[in-house]
Amino acid sequence: MATMQDVARHAQVSIATVSFVLNKTKPVTAATRERVEAAMAELGYRRNPAGSALARGRTDIIALLYPALQRQLHATATRFFTSAAERASERGFSLVLWPAANEAAQIEELTRSGLIDGVLLMEVQLDDARVEALRGGSTPFALIGRTQDPSGLPFVDIDFEQTVVQAVEQIVTLGHTNIAFIYDHSGPTTLHAYGAIARASRAFHDTLAQSGLTGVLVDCRENPRAGRLVGETFRADFPDATAVIIMNELASPGFMTGLRRSGARVPEDLSVLSIVSSETVATMSDPELAFMRAPAVELGRLGVDAIIDRITAPDSPLPHTLVPCEMVPGPSLGPTPEH
Amino acid sequence: MATMQDVARHAQVSIATVSFVLNKTKPVTAATRERVEAAMAELGYRRNPAGSALARGRTDIIALLYPALQRQLHATATRFFTSAAERASERGFSLVLWPAANEAAQIEELTRSGLIDGVLLMEVQLDDARVEALRGGSTPFALIGRTQDPSGLPFVDIDFEQTVVQAVEQIVTLGHTNIAFIYDHSGPTTLHAYGAIARASRAFHDTLAQSGLTGVLVDCRENPRAGRLVGETFRADFPDATAVIIMNELASPGFMTGLRRSGARVPEDLSVLSIVSSETVATMSDPELAFMRAPAVELGRLGVDAIIDRITAPDSPLPHTLVPCEMVPGPSLGPTPEH
Repeated sequence: MATMQDVARHAQVSIATVSFVLNKTKPVTAATRERVEAAMAELGYRRNPAGSALARGRTDIIALLYPALQRQLHATATRFFTSAAERASERGFSLVLWPAANEAAQIEELTRSGLIDGVLLMEVQLDDARVEALRGGSTPFALIGRTQDPSGLPFVDIDFEQTVVQAVEQIVTLGHTNIAFIYDHSGPTTLHAYGAIARASRAFHDTLAQSGLTGVLVDCRENPRAGRLVGETFRADFPDATAVIIMNELASPGFMTGLRRSGARVPEDLSVLSIVSSETVATMSDPELAFMRAPAVELGRLGVDAIIDRITAPDSPLPHTLVPCEMVPGPSLGPTPEH
Repeated sequence: MATMQDVARHAQVSIATVSFVLNKTKPVTAATRERVEAAMAELGYRRNPAGSALARGRTDIIALLYPALQRQLHATATRFFTSAAERASERGFSLVLWPAANEAAQIEELTRSGLIDGVLLMEVQLDDARVEALRGGSTPFALIGRTQDPSGLPFVDIDFEQTVVQAVEQIVTLGHTNIAFIYDHSGPTTLHAYGAIARASRAFHDTLAQSGLTGVLVDCRENPRAGRLVGETFRADFPDATAVIIMNELASPGFMTGLRRSGARVPEDLSVLSIVSSETVATMSDPELAFMRAPAVELGRLGVDAIIDRITAPDSPLPHTLVPCEMVPGPSLGPTPEH
């Protein structure tokens, strides 16, 4: 590939002159311009929009940071990505999925590169080194998720608290008073303080305490076999629970298989509601799961709008947007066995 | 963000001089350098490695192109991505997932930008407009997948032919002589000629014809409900088939649910082998599926090696690498009912 240097040598001008011709930053004589353009044509040098984008301080590329090497992309995460990419495209930006661990150093390297106009973070932790690195820099950023105290940060997030309150209400309406909450409490160390899990489990605890209901937290790793093992012994382990809220998309089809193998009937013996979930996984289960759909499409769009606003209108107010999951009925929910 | 122009104005020098200081492309006096560096410090201008990367013709970024807006990222695709990103990182490159439709225009825009050193294509079609666009340009590229005639192209791919031959052999060894092959024949228009499907279905046809066995091709969209519907009527629709090869990861758990609901026992009545699949989806099914694992980890690495070799050693031989899927036994396979 011919470089600017090659063109300059061939046209017998300075690199700066080539740059002036390319970027129209200074006038050059017609003869010089012709010589430079002839050299470009002869060498097959292509005008480089990135060069001029960099010159004007913009590449129109947004990086969606996801720790893909540390945490498998689940069905819901891919929907965030797809929706965000669509919205970015509508607004004239490219959105790329950038695998980055939750480490400040990787963020600094990425933003220093100048290759991206802004950063959209996913899988935000309560105490997130990436956010601190971004706060200290000048690259615009926004979060899909929240830190412990996100008051000074631009974010859009699932309203986990509201989602759990609605999930519990839905189940209580059916007469249940003893509810289990299944989620991955012991995930990878780097995600231990993942905000989603912390917020949802606390909301579950608080809601039950306020209502005088009985609840139990059940740990389950994020994979189908772990779900099946928990399902197979669930009735023996928690004989009083008549309903389950599961926030663990990868484990939920296996959990249903385990229940069935143990002889438990859903919903006759046990009601199950999957939250922060997707149609794909809900319909993989037997029976299909009632679920609360993660607002992935909506938040993907809102997240991209948030970061583009930070880029194009840095003085606009910081978005603090929470969207609850939407209830999708299904045959896994029924009245409590005593009723 | 301060631009090069701001620095030049502040230091009262030309933009070219700022560029000389930044990129060390021409000597400047110590006094001028100090003035420029002072202006940079005062304005918070950050040296831009991308600028110098562009000057030397390299950004060390590879784009993995996946038509994410047209085709949902399935579990196996995310494993390709993760493995490729890991390998790129080992070799000092960043790999980003770039959503791009199978359109020449998007490829041209991306490669013209100069922001990426190379392109790795996924979901390659037999006749692929993206490949034609890349052939006509100067950006290095490699394929995970193959076109109809890939002889002049650098590619790594699943050996679909060998995988299907091994799948049929495995099933024939168990005594089955009437085999169904389930896959999505009517996928999105843009992927109609997706090489994987064309090659696997043809190999199935040829292998059966050569062995004098009976086979049937069964169409099934790529989602769990479609799988369940096919499963529910499968025994009524294909009463003579005693074994199934399914190449449709999203539909396979639903297919197993449908079989069970119809009263069919696996493997007593029907053996099922999932091919080009992953542990995640195989273990979501009940019973768990015997499967042939897509060599996603291996091909992700090989694909990245292929594109980095194109970038760093353009004269090296074109890789033409095929890797078959690996058999993973499971309880869904058994002898034919007649035996």
